[in-house]
Amino acid sequence: MPALTESFALPTQGKGTYDLTAQVARLVAKSGVRTGLATVFLAHTSASLVIYENADPTAREDLHRFFERLVPDSGNDYLHTDEGPDDTTSHLRMALTRTSEGVPVAGGRLCLGTWQGIFLFEHRSAPHRRTVWVSVVGE
Amino acid sequence: MPALTESFALPTQGKGTYDLTAQVARLVAKSGVRTGLATVFLAHTSASLVIYENADPTAREDLHRFFERLVPDSGNDYLHTDEGPDDTTSHLRMALTRTSEGVPVAGGRLCLGTWQGIFLFEHRSAPHRRTVWVSVVGE
Amino acid sequence: MPALTESFALPTQGKGTYDLTAQVARLVAKSGVRTGLATVFLAHTSASLVIYENADPTAREDLHRFFERLVPDSGNDYLHTDEGPDDTTSHLRMALTRTSEGVPVAGGRLCLGTWQGIFLFEHRSAPHRRTVWVSVVGE
Repeated sequence: MPALTESFALPTQGKGTYDLTAQVARLVAKSGVRTGLATVFLAHTSASLVIYENADPTAREDLHRFFERLVPDSGNDYLHTDEGPDDTTSHLRMALTRTSEGVPVAGGRLCLGTWQGIFLFEHRSAPHRRTVWVSVVGE
Repeated sequence: MPALTESFALPTQGKGTYDLTAQVARLVAKSGVRTGLATVFLAHTSASLVIYENADPTAREDLHRFFERLVPDSGNDYLHTDEGPDDTTSHLRMALTRTSEGVPVAGGRLCLGTWQGIFLFEHRSAPHRRTVWVSVVGE
Repeated sequence: MPALTESFALPTQGKGTYDLTAQVARLVAKSGVRTGLATVFLAHTSASLVIYENADPTAREDLHRFFERLVPDSGNDYLHTDEGPDDTTSHLRMALTRTSEGVPVAGGRLCLGTWQGIFLFEHRSAPHRRTVWVSVVGE
């Protein structure tokens, strides 16, 4: 059975969503798995993953604004703020979205819908270098 | 190693939750996997998955009402509304719940708890035909 | 291909987060899988999983307080409250976080980031005995 676990680095330039679908698809191809499962995992607690609408950029703008309002960086009384006002709020936004995502593989390809992209959702204002792990198992 | 990836269609008639546990269990049985993992994946961005209380229908009614309030379709200023007032809000409700769910398999069966059902959470008011993928890997 | 699916019990003493990273790591070691995927699954609908900041306890205190406010137990009009004011709210907090989490395995170890711990997020005030399933697949 082929099985691959590999990571890649993704540099981020502040809050927002970053498409990593192509990098994941590349590792699925590399794995040789035809039928199975690809799992994407983000090794951080102040950024997250989300599968989101990949065509209209305003869809993701709405996502960013929604989270600024649901978990506002200012006017709160959080305790864990050593790294700034976006410290605890980054963790909370991460908890509300995803850290891992499993995507079935058929015919050697990710079974994503037409409008689905796999995005890293960066919650910190400062640039970061994020580590994304991909595991592919199957046959 | 047995490995199966297969999809099925689920027609929805507006907002609400639709139980798809039986369809997933059927594909686990078909796979021949005794020990391993079943992953359910929804190939859409305006509907989502959630494992939820499966016995009392009012539990799910509370879920539906909670999301109507947390992410209201009216009185907002979202940009991505080409397909109506439930366009961006569908994506946001999806991002807050799940697109994929992994359920361990033991003895050829899903390791679900007594009160757990796997539901498709439809966020669009209009009827849709949704594609659900299931991947089963193991031995 | 090695494949393991096993459960363990975790007693909880009221609302809060309980670290179960060590128990998961132990099952990964036991499985013999060097390259693959570990999936953690919680067999309940009134508690959930979350991968969260594992170093500063105030980070998790902020998480607990955030959910008390986002989904308050009192002052609501929920229908499903047979087991008390934390009945439906437990399910809602579960739906907003996670029931399953997939963590890639490389070199026989979980690919967690330095600050990531796997936590059970208990949403009920009364003590419970929770069942956690772990599936490990790969080679």
